[in-house]
Formats: sequence, structure tokens, C-alpha cells
Amino acid sequence: MSYQLTALYNHPSDVAAFDKHYDDVHAVLAAKLPDVRSFSISRPQPGPDGTKPDYHLIAVLVWDSAEAAGASLGSEAGKEAVADLDNFAGAGVTMLTGPSTAVV
Amino acid sequence: MSYQLTALYNHPSDVAAFDKHYDDVHAVLAAKLPDVRSFSISRPQPGPDGTKPDYHLIAVLVWDSAEAAGASLGSEAGKEAVADLDNFAGAGVTMLTGPSTAVV
Repeated sequence: MSYQLTALYNHPSDVAAFDKHYDDVHAVLAAKLPDVRSFSISRPQPGPDGTKPDYHLIAVLVWDSAEAAGASLGSEAGKEAVADLDNFAGAGVTMLTGPSTAVV
Repeated sequence: MSYQLTALYNHPSDVAAFDKHYDDVHAVLAAKLPDVRSFSISRPQPGPDGTKPDYHLIAVLVWDSAEAAGASLGSEAGKEAVADLDNFAGAGVTMLTGPSTAVV
């Protein structure tokens, strides 16, 4: 049983600034988190009818266990990544953590 | 550039019935989607202060491309999985689709 952090970012007021900071700074910091097994980023697109998706960006990080996730997020690299949220995620972010299973 | 479907399920009224149907029926159907590269399920836990997470279950499916995702969801197996939502997801589900990148 792995452990997953899902971060759902609300639509920012300045999309270009958000995307640049996320890609150039935040993703680089998050990639340094110790023992992360996978870290993926998705940018949802509008639906077929043009409706805006509920979130601007989804990040999914997976560790081998809840203990590994806790230690990783509590490390210096983890604290730095969390502190960086203040620099770009003012529109809000929903963080969800829990056990995860790979079906495929 | 891969393509990702993120399904965010709202908290069901009957958690046990939802979980049983998801694991025994829906996950089995979703795992049969053609050309899915990965499919993972996470059940978020309450926060450190006991607050209920915003969603009950998160499913993430990844294909090699938007075209592969479209063909997969439009296949017989895809139609069957989508139709099955009516059987257990009455509390609502948010579907988000878009390009995704594996950073780690």
C-alpha cells in the first residue's frame, strides 16, 4: 500500500505567472522531496462543451508508505516546498493525503 | 506528454456500499480500459485536525496520448465503465482530463 498526496490547485488570477512559478520553482522543489516514488502534474482542459475545469492543476505524489511521506514532507526539502506555496498558490489549493493502490 | 483522467468522488451516503461497488465492480471495469498505462486509487484520510477530506476517493488513469484516452473511453469497455457510474456515484463525481507529465 503506497501513500499519495493529491494537490488540487484552484484557477489562479494570473495563469502565466502561476504556470511559470510552478514549472520553474515549485516542481523543482517538489522533485527534491526524499523518497518520492512518482510525481506527476496534469493541467485539466475544458470539457467538450467548453466548461472550465474545477481545478487549474493537479499534482500527484506517491511514496512507499505513510511513514515515508511524513518524513519526506517534514524534511528540509519538504518544508521548503510547503513554504513555497505562499509564493504562487494564493487562489487556494486542496491537499488530500491517504493510502493509494496501483490497479494497473 | 501523457494524458490523464482524474476522478474525484464526493462522499457517498453509504460508504460501505460505495467502497464495495467501487472495488468489486467499477475498478474491475476500469482496469479493462484498452491501453491504460496506469490506474491508481487513493482514499484520502481526515486531516491532522480531524477535518473530513473534500473527496472520498480519487482515481487517476493515464494513457500515452489524448487520442489513446479518447479511443479507450469510447470503446465498449469505456462505455461500460462510464455507464456503471450510475450504479454507485450518485453523490457526484468530478472528472478532469488533460495532458500530464511525469516529473519523477
